[in-house]
Amino acid sequence: MKHTKRFIWAQILLYTFVFLFSTLIGISNAEDRNVRTEINIPDILEYQTLKCDFHMHTVFSDGLVWPTIRVEEAWREGLEVISITDHIEYLPFRNDVAPNHNRPYELAKSTADALGIVLIRGTEITRKMPPGHLNAIFLDDVEPLVVDDVMESIEAAYKQSAFIFWNHPGWKGQQPDGIAKWYEIHTKLYEKGWMHGIEVVNGIEYYPEVHQWCIDKKLTLMGNSDIHNPISFDYDIADGEHRPITLVFAKDKSLESIKDALVNRRTVVYWNNDLIGEQTYLAEIFYQSIDIENPVIDLTERSSAVVQIFNGSDVPFRLKSQTADADVSVSDEVTLQPGKFSVIAVRKKKSASPSPGMRTMDLSFTVQNLRIAADKGLPVVLKLQVNFD
Amino acid sequence: MKHTKRFIWAQILLYTFVFLFSTLIGISNAEDRNVRTEINIPDILEYQTLKCDFHMHTVFSDGLVWPTIRVEEAWREGLEVISITDHIEYLPFRNDVAPNHNRPYELAKSTADALGIVLIRGTEITRKMPPGHLNAIFLDDVEPLVVDDVMESIEAAYKQSAFIFWNHPGWKGQQPDGIAKWYEIHTKLYEKGWMHGIEVVNGIEYYPEVHQWCIDKKLTLMGNSDIHNPISFDYDIADGEHRPITLVFAKDKSLESIKDALVNRRTVVYWNNDLIGEQTYLAEIFYQSIDIENPVIDLTERSSAVVQIFNGSDVPFRLKSQTADADVSVSDEVTLQPGKFSVIAVRKKKSASPSPGMRTMDLSFTVQNLRIAADKGLPVVLKLQVNFD
Amino acid sequence: MKHTKRFIWAQILLYTFVFLFSTLIGISNAEDRNVRTEINIPDILEYQTLKCDFHMHTVFSDGLVWPTIRVEEAWREGLEVISITDHIEYLPFRNDVAPNHNRPYELAKSTADALGIVLIRGTEITRKMPPGHLNAIFLDDVEPLVVDDVMESIEAAYKQSAFIFWNHPGWKGQQPDGIAKWYEIHTKLYEKGWMHGIEVVNGIEYYPEVHQWCIDKKLTLMGNSDIHNPISFDYDIADGEHRPITLVFAKDKSLESIKDALVNRRTVVYWNNDLIGEQTYLAEIFYQSIDIENPVIDLTERSSAVVQIFNGSDVPFRLKSQTADADVSVSDEVTLQPGKFSVIAVRKKKSASPSPGMRTMDLSFTVQNLRIAADKGLPVVLKLQVNFD
Amino acid sequence: MKHTKRFIWAQILLYTFVFLFSTLIGISNAEDRNVRTEINIPDILEYQTLKCDFHMHTVFSDGLVWPTIRVEEAWREGLEVISITDHIEYLPFRNDVAPNHNRPYELAKSTADALGIVLIRGTEITRKMPPGHLNAIFLDDVEPLVVDDVMESIEAAYKQSAFIFWNHPGWKGQQPDGIAKWYEIHTKLYEKGWMHGIEVVNGIEYYPEVHQWCIDKKLTLMGNSDIHNPISFDYDIADGEHRPITLVFAKDKSLESIKDALVNRRTVVYWNNDLIGEQTYLAEIFYQSIDIENPVIDLTERSSAVVQIFNGSDVPFRLKSQTADADVSVSDEVTLQPGKFSVIAVRKKKSASPSPGMRTMDLSFTVQNLRIAADKGLPVVLKLQVNFD
Repeated sequence: MKHTKRFIWAQILLYTFVFLFSTLIGISNAEDRNVRTEINIPDILEYQTLKCDFHMHTVFSDGLVWPTIRVEEAWREGLEVISITDHIEYLPFRNDVAPNHNRPYELAKSTADALGIVLIRGTEITRKMPPGHLNAIFLDDVEPLVVDDVMESIEAAYKQSAFIFWNHPGWKGQQPDGIAKWYEIHTKLYEKGWMHGIEVVNGIEYYPEVHQWCIDKKLTLMGNSDIHNPISFDYDIADGEHRPITLVFAKDKSLESIKDALVNRRTVVYWNNDLIGEQTYLAEIFYQSIDIENPVIDLTERSSAVVQIFNGSDVPFRLKSQTADADVSVSDEVTLQPGKFSVIAVRKKKSASPSPGMRTMDLSFTVQNLRIAADKGLPVVLKLQVNFD
Repeated sequence: MKHTKRFIWAQILLYTFVFLFSTLIGISNAEDRNVRTEINIPDILEYQTLKCDFHMHTVFSDGLVWPTIRVEEAWREGLEVISITDHIEYLPFRNDVAPNHNRPYELAKSTADALGIVLIRGTEITRKMPPGHLNAIFLDDVEPLVVDDVMESIEAAYKQSAFIFWNHPGWKGQQPDGIAKWYEIHTKLYEKGWMHGIEVVNGIEYYPEVHQWCIDKKLTLMGNSDIHNPISFDYDIADGEHRPITLVFAKDKSLESIKDALVNRRTVVYWNNDLIGEQTYLAEIFYQSIDIENPVIDLTERSSAVVQIFNGSDVPFRLKSQTADADVSVSDEVTLQPGKFSVIAVRKKKSASPSPGMRTMDLSFTVQNLRIAADKGLPVVLKLQVNFD
Repeated sequence: MKHTKRFIWAQILLYTFVFLFSTLIGISNAEDRNVRTEINIPDILEYQTLKCDFHMHTVFSDGLVWPTIRVEEAWREGLEVISITDHIEYLPFRNDVAPNHNRPYELAKSTADALGIVLIRGTEITRKMPPGHLNAIFLDDVEPLVVDDVMESIEAAYKQSAFIFWNHPGWKGQQPDGIAKWYEIHTKLYEKGWMHGIEVVNGIEYYPEVHQWCIDKKLTLMGNSDIHNPISFDYDIADGEHRPITLVFAKDKSLESIKDALVNRRTVVYWNNDLIGEQTYLAEIFYQSIDIENPVIDLTERSSAVVQIFNGSDVPFRLKSQTADADVSVSDEVTLQPGKFSVIAVRKKKSASPSPGMRTMDLSFTVQNLRIAADKGLPVVLKLQVNFD
Repeated sequence: MKHTKRFIWAQILLYTFVFLFSTLIGISNAEDRNVRTEINIPDILEYQTLKCDFHMHTVFSDGLVWPTIRVEEAWREGLEVISITDHIEYLPFRNDVAPNHNRPYELAKSTADALGIVLIRGTEITRKMPPGHLNAIFLDDVEPLVVDDVMESIEAAYKQSAFIFWNHPGWKGQQPDGIAKWYEIHTKLYEKGWMHGIEVVNGIEYYPEVHQWCIDKKLTLMGNSDIHNPISFDYDIADGEHRPITLVFAKDKSLESIKDALVNRRTVVYWNNDLIGEQTYLAEIFYQSIDIENPVIDLTERSSAVVQIFNGSDVPFRLKSQTADADVSVSDEVTLQPGKFSVIAVRKKKSASPSPGMRTMDLSFTVQNLRIAADKGLPVVLKLQVNFD
């Protein structure tokens, strides 16, 4: 009598009851919906660029989906690593869903394994400000954190070698003016080595002041979704929107390597069309993403030409020219569209009197949406050869 | 300590804790995602055309979302009436979610009220074939149906004046060849008046043989989603796809009027781009949807002209010409695109020798995707005035 | 031997050679591409809201398409009125295309008639700044304007009762800093009544200083595409982008009524998501577009509620709250999405102590993208009934 | 007085008048529209896979755009090689556009050079059936082909070492029943070596009988657009539609190599979602496009698993299973979505009793939309390792 009707894809993975066999054969249309869209951001240096979300909720606290859905959503969206971090202290569905802080991880693990998603056990310590909310990930067991005193709870995470980060410091629910404030308890956590990173981005919010803290205090930049709804309620996934993602530059996909990357601050936050992080990483991503189709241009028979540049990443690069050249002018603002060839126009100035022959030319730009600080875009240079007559 | 982090829209409706106030103000981006897209299918005769889904699941049986999500999905997609119909007998999450057959309705009701969605209490009686699965809706209490004997369970629904329909008779999980079979127990239910309708459409499946049964036996045509996943996993909502919908022609949105319409078979099934139902209703929908921009055309100075037709519905009408006219030929196949003006070309035949002056002309078409029987499209006529020289 | 191969839709209209008959029958796929998408902006006051573009080019000056294409593009995009305004003085293709200033109109007229597009004979007088470029429309014959002296040329237009407007005053090709300048000759034209309007929008450019001139000098606001390419090169029509459009509020679609509306300054410019014009017209458009689904809300049993508002126009309305109410707060910023129901959250303040019972409440907003001056949004009020306990 | 107003991109390339300089700087929005979208179909064997269209029209015969537009359209759509092939005999615009059969090539050449598009000089010999219409490409001069006798015209092309192919043999304008017929004159042309290929696809039409002719007579398969309108009228480019394309497998992009490939029949036609051609080429494209993410699957602890397959091409591959295996069943029909990871479910049969351990398994499929003959899909095999317990 335990028959269910419909093809539930998660159940291929969770359940292998015999009755399912006949069900699944031939329902190809539904399977055709199970597609994974890769996120195109290149690997850099000697690292893999892992797409991660370390903050999300399920019906085991105040989220609105079953834990396996978080894995499937991540798989569909091209993520590689997630952590389900249900609240310890806030359980509005406790009358219907039996409280169990390790349960989301346990329920989601086999789906994650089947789909190749790395699932990290985590939780959200959920207190009034200060210290506000903190996530602890890479836990072995959430239960020891379930204690009244917040410092004891965080210490319990620390003892399990967790990576601990402060969530949404500027959240209006706790900071009505939307400005993050650093309290004494944060200094204490920071000095004890109990707080390793901070969310500079949470959902639709970016906190520029927190960005500066991370630069100054050498804390790891984090950007996560904190999703409660089915993801498609908050992001138009089908139209190419994406949740906030923490890009982690790791040797491989093992838990050890991911933690090593986080501890050593090898992250960039991917938020809307922005990449937020250290200049080294942003520059690598930029130069690995683009390809100049025709780096040698000819201004001998014409006074202008277009340089075609392919951008292999999913991130549009919004260039603003910083070039001051005696002989040529270039497009003032150009966006290198993702997955496309875009063009930069190069024009000989009326006043130009270049020596004939081939000349190396450095075009300088700021990439406005690659932020090396809150208000500072990434400087880049495109190298051309220009032939004058 | 009961702080939650994020804006959860459902919670505007469910919870009104004071701390939420500051949260909600100013998070306008997230609110901008909360939009409802109307389904454009006209009201007909003296009825409202209600868009309904009477079959869906939540974590209270084997669905993968919280009950309120079903209401929000329906609101976003432009539905007006839903019933959550969790399985009575199949509860794979029973170790985590406390079994309670009335609970999904109770949890979802205030969200439904706040959003103006009509929520009908229902359940799915889930048995081996025969009789397979049946939905009972308009219940006062699901508990009396929780009995071993299936006839007793259905009788309990009948005693509550439920509307009862047979789900997915051709489901391969129970009919491996995909062909629906009518068993003795179905005759029994039918004759007792304990089965009022059948799903001719369930999710991605359409059962032509069931369509014919409904015509022959005067059973109500039903088409439902039977959704278990978040809806966007199975349908590209953002790209204009829609779940299967039962259109109900009701005097108003009261439970009584909806039930009256169902009992009296005033339904049409809206599945992909097809409308499936009785000729009367399909013809009304067609003629109420279209508008001929220029019904008087002039072939005095030219030998061809285009007739512009606006289709105000969301359904593309795929017309195939049945016109045999001595003087003119028309486009053989034309689709009247939804929400657009499309054109039909009318051309004077080489062999034509019409009398000069204005002539009334009936253009006959079959609308191939408006099915009055499994393999029979709706016949329609477009009336023009044509002026010959 | 004059056989062409392919179905060219324009040719249904232009040519009616016998051989075409057999061609056209049955090529339904291509016909399915011939759809017109309406622009949804309501009629206001006692007028029709005509969607117009009074500035465009073809191969008869420096445009890159045949004249009939301008008509077909306009039809597809939902425009009702256009004027082809090829340059008089600038004819780069003169070696291949025989110069003839009336020819674009003559070639396009029968296509316009067949599709129901109003085509107005026009031209562009193309001079150095000052006075720059001016369009003259509603001409009977372009040839008299072909004279050396610019004042004589404009006078020739005036003598034909043309409507004359100054094009793109801030165009960088003539004003390198992008700022429009008013010269003595413009005063002369203005005082003689030889210049009735100015383009406040041309293609991707909006000139705020010109907007103020129009307000101060009672000149007609114009916004046009000045399209040279096939339209889809410059606008992602398929993704819902639109060219700049002059909305004209006219008694009917006759040339007389259109000219009357232009002369009497009954226009609004529709540019990207902005409407630019007088408060009277913008307010009418706003209120005619929206519909409050549930204007009576109940805060007796809950402390917050959502007001559902349907926006029937194609323009998203970006509301910013100006409400200061003792008892309730509302969403600070909300966009009423086009063709959708959006929501505004209304929440009882913690400090509120309203008298019990029903209260009329005016919610004040500024619609930021409906510009009554360069930096001034339209003020609007939404009326609700709120029930307190 | 030679002022033009607007940014016309083609004119960067065509004209370099001084006045343009100031115009172009800063009009970055319009430049952002100038993007090229690559067509992802892999290079195969030792060849480049060139995307080509050898049949299109301009205002120099009965097309509706200026020649440079054909180059820009091709660049935007990711084509690499085109030929403008205006009619010799059919010149409906001769009163306005001075007849000149070499002119379209001359006008378009500098734009093609600037954008890196290979432009081939060609023309369409346009006669009654038989022999109908033929394209001659790789001409040095079109004028010698302008003679009354069709055989003389074709001979003139042959003498210039042209590649000659028969256009749209089943076009209803010449074959009212839509069925291609092979006439005596075609035998004559074929035996003389004056006809090297045939269009198996022209615009929206595919001729299965012609496909078989090409197989039997060793003629080169051609598929072209024959576009007359601006391309976006006939194809929803923005939504991912593409014109018919002849894929040419050439050593490099030189005219010699392209002609060598055509003469040696190294082509595949890319039409809607179909690839039409020889098994060798289709198989190479398929295997070069896909990548099995997890070719080793484990059925020791679960009875089903999903194989993830990445399809790097733009072509969806519609697989139909041909596997008959004693131990496992696989999804009956699966589409490998372009640019995505799709899944194939592999399930241990109830009746299975495999030996424990790792087993190599060949999954056989037919790719239904890769046509090696009119009604024959491409057979392919996916190799897995399956571990049983």
